Amino acid sequence: MIKYAILGFGVVGGGLAQVMADQKDKLAAAAGRQMELGYILVRHDYPDSPWRDKLVRDFSLIENDPDVAVVAEVIGGVGAAYEYSRRAILAGKSVVSSNKELVAVHGAELAALAREHGVSYLFEGSVGGGIPLLRPLCRCLAANRIDQVYGILNGTTNYILTAMDAHGRSFADALKTAQSLGYAEADPTADVEGIDACRKTTILADLSFGQNVDPADIPTRGITQVEPADLELARALGYTVKLLGRAARTGEGICAFVEPHLVARDHILASVNGVMNACAIQGSAVGEVVLCGPGAGAHPTASAVAADIADAVRHMADPQVPDLGRPGGALLPADALCSRWYVRAQCGPEAVSAAFPGAEPVYGSTGECGFVTGAMYDRRQLEEKLAAVNGRAAYRVLA
Amino acid sequence: MIKYAILGFGVVGGGLAQVMADQKDKLAAAAGRQMELGYILVRHDYPDSPWRDKLVRDFSLIENDPDVAVVAEVIGGVGAAYEYSRRAILAGKSVVSSNKELVAVHGAELAALAREHGVSYLFEGSVGGGIPLLRPLCRCLAANRIDQVYGILNGTTNYILTAMDAHGRSFADALKTAQSLGYAEADPTADVEGIDACRKTTILADLSFGQNVDPADIPTRGITQVEPADLELARALGYTVKLLGRAARTGEGICAFVEPHLVARDHILASVNGVMNACAIQGSAVGEVVLCGPGAGAHPTASAVAADIADAVRHMADPQVPDLGRPGGALLPADALCSRWYVRAQCGPEAVSAAFPGAEPVYGSTGECGFVTGAMYDRRQLEEKLAAVNGRAAYRVLA
Repeated sequence: MIKYAILGFGVVGGGLAQVMADQKDKLAAAAGRQMELGYILVRHDYPDSPWRDKLVRDFSLIENDPDVAVVAEVIGGVGAAYEYSRRAILAGKSVVSSNKELVAVHGAELAALAREHGVSYLFEGSVGGGIPLLRPLCRCLAANRIDQVYGILNGTTNYILTAMDAHGRSFADALKTAQSLGYAEADPTADVEGIDACRKTTILADLSFGQNVDPADIPTRGITQVEPADLELARALGYTVKLLGRAARTGEGICAFVEPHLVARDHILASVNGVMNACAIQGSAVGEVVLCGPGAGAHPTASAVAADIADAVRHMADPQVPDLGRPGGALLPADALCSRWYVRAQCGPEAVSAAFPGAEPVYGSTGECGFVTGAMYDRRQLEEKLAAVNGRAAYRVLA
Repeated sequence: MIKYAILGFGVVGGGLAQVMADQKDKLAAAAGRQMELGYILVRHDYPDSPWRDKLVRDFSLIENDPDVAVVAEVIGGVGAAYEYSRRAILAGKSVVSSNKELVAVHGAELAALAREHGVSYLFEGSVGGGIPLLRPLCRCLAANRIDQVYGILNGTTNYILTAMDAHGRSFADALKTAQSLGYAEADPTADVEGIDACRKTTILADLSFGQNVDPADIPTRGITQVEPADLELARALGYTVKLLGRAARTGEGICAFVEPHLVARDHILASVNGVMNACAIQGSAVGEVVLCGPGAGAHPTASAVAADIADAVRHMADPQVPDLGRPGGALLPADALCSRWYVRAQCGPEAVSAAFPGAEPVYGSTGECGFVTGAMYDRRQLEEKLAAVNGRAAYRVLA
């Protein structure tokens, strides 16, 4: 009997043990054989857990058990998660993970190690939670040159923006509600500053363009500066505001960034509300596909990790390691992607017309106006003009 | 060198040859080895085709070439396509197909034959065109009991409904435009009567519930009866009209049907316009995911078929045959699924209130009214009440 081990017994770890038990037979059919939970690596006692006889605190028990073929790392972070992932691969075990930070930072290294040791390294749950996303990108769209990936990759910020849009609430107020509902952490920095979305954008860029990207190189703006006035003006202009991670192939190289965007109301992404995520993929043959669903949560993420476990078991003789790309040149600056821009400004319509000929401002309840510019590559050019209109905010418009 | 053959040189066949050539190296990486086009089976001469030296008219050349490992059937229909698929499998070749009619009618038989002969039988392109859909359903969501699948599965009808909604046009008028743009065939019956959507719903039901469904058993209504007044009233009520194929698991069995539905304006499916398709999948662990993209067209469909070819080559030692289910009991009647209903009627508000307490009618430019009923299981009960309000049309509301 093939065994698997779960590292970490938090929200995702508990959900994973449950999902693996609930769908044991279906997963066995996918894996081609029955699989048994061998161990759950924990740091605390859980005397009432139904899995209490599987709980261990010593990773070496897992590392040294030859029956353990797959290790599911759902600890998070780049400390113990990194060390155990390495040791598991060195011990000849496949590793599956939902840890976006680890995959974004050390994924390429772990993938190379897995290839060297003839085991699988899979991480479907690291981007988009339960949405089938990385396998479709790498396998189903294998006949495409990928030209752009972009999406709503963080549920916390999408919940906050949705609440601000629907109820005219402030960022701080919407964040408080998100925290009280468990959609945001006590320290929400990684979410609201776009860091989580940046990690996921890194992984998407790695898989799409064959160039391994350092998340530190991706210009990242979160949503803390978005004001109710922006959502009001966006609505009057026919848009809503979404935090998007984007990565695109241009003639000169790869360009990636995380920024709030204005998204037209009739675009599919404008209907992706609350904690839902969605990712669009543009390919040379397929055109554009959009994959939507729950981007986080115990059971959705477990759904992705469990499928990876089954896939790793099925492919013991043909290990699966997605290509996270070669260490590459620098990213292009975000300016490499031409955009129209939304501007919130404090000025009269004449000033808008003078600085941005053809722009049509709408005025909101704060007395400020909002308008959309023509397409421009150069953000510096935009910023010079912002002074002339007393500009307060500027966000890209999704083409 | 592994060879593949393409059966049929129509829109999809030509696109497939092109996509396989364009992305030769990427597909080789996915397949684990280089693949070479061996033959294209044709019925006419194409003296100017770049592939003219690969064109053959005699299937036995393909059947008898031991280097051909995969046959891509893109002929369509259940005549020659069925015969050649069978013969290819009997000759030990994997078969991939975008032929929804063949898969819906003979898929289970061909899958059993493929299993028996140790080859793959894949048909990602048969539902949703280029959208990664069947592989996500079967592989990525393997940790889920699937509870419902529903979607916009036909681009022609979605184009027509979108044009009727945006421009207030009649069905006949919108159909004519669709035909002039190549989105509808000269004989549009299979599309507008819902037959094409029914075949795709059959395949989704087969894969989701483990019960092989006969497409003839799925109650199917197309869009020929949808009037501009329905779209006008739907809009006033906060909805749009979409043709949906649905298949659901209930406590008593499987229920499937194809019908026009009212879809709320803020639902993702309401933003899926023109020839785009989308499919929602509800799973026990993941909740709901929605996959959107181009549901037809040469290159999108070729994208799906090409990925299947690469997958079949990669898995020569571990053939891939999705489970299309066992021949099963009868489907439940469509009434097994409880719905609210939209009704278009010719009567005053008092008559509406008397027959449907609580319903709030809106009146349109034809003098007819539209309203949404409470939830009801029994369509007969609905139909009795329709007489009392002089009902002209009734469509389900997507919950």
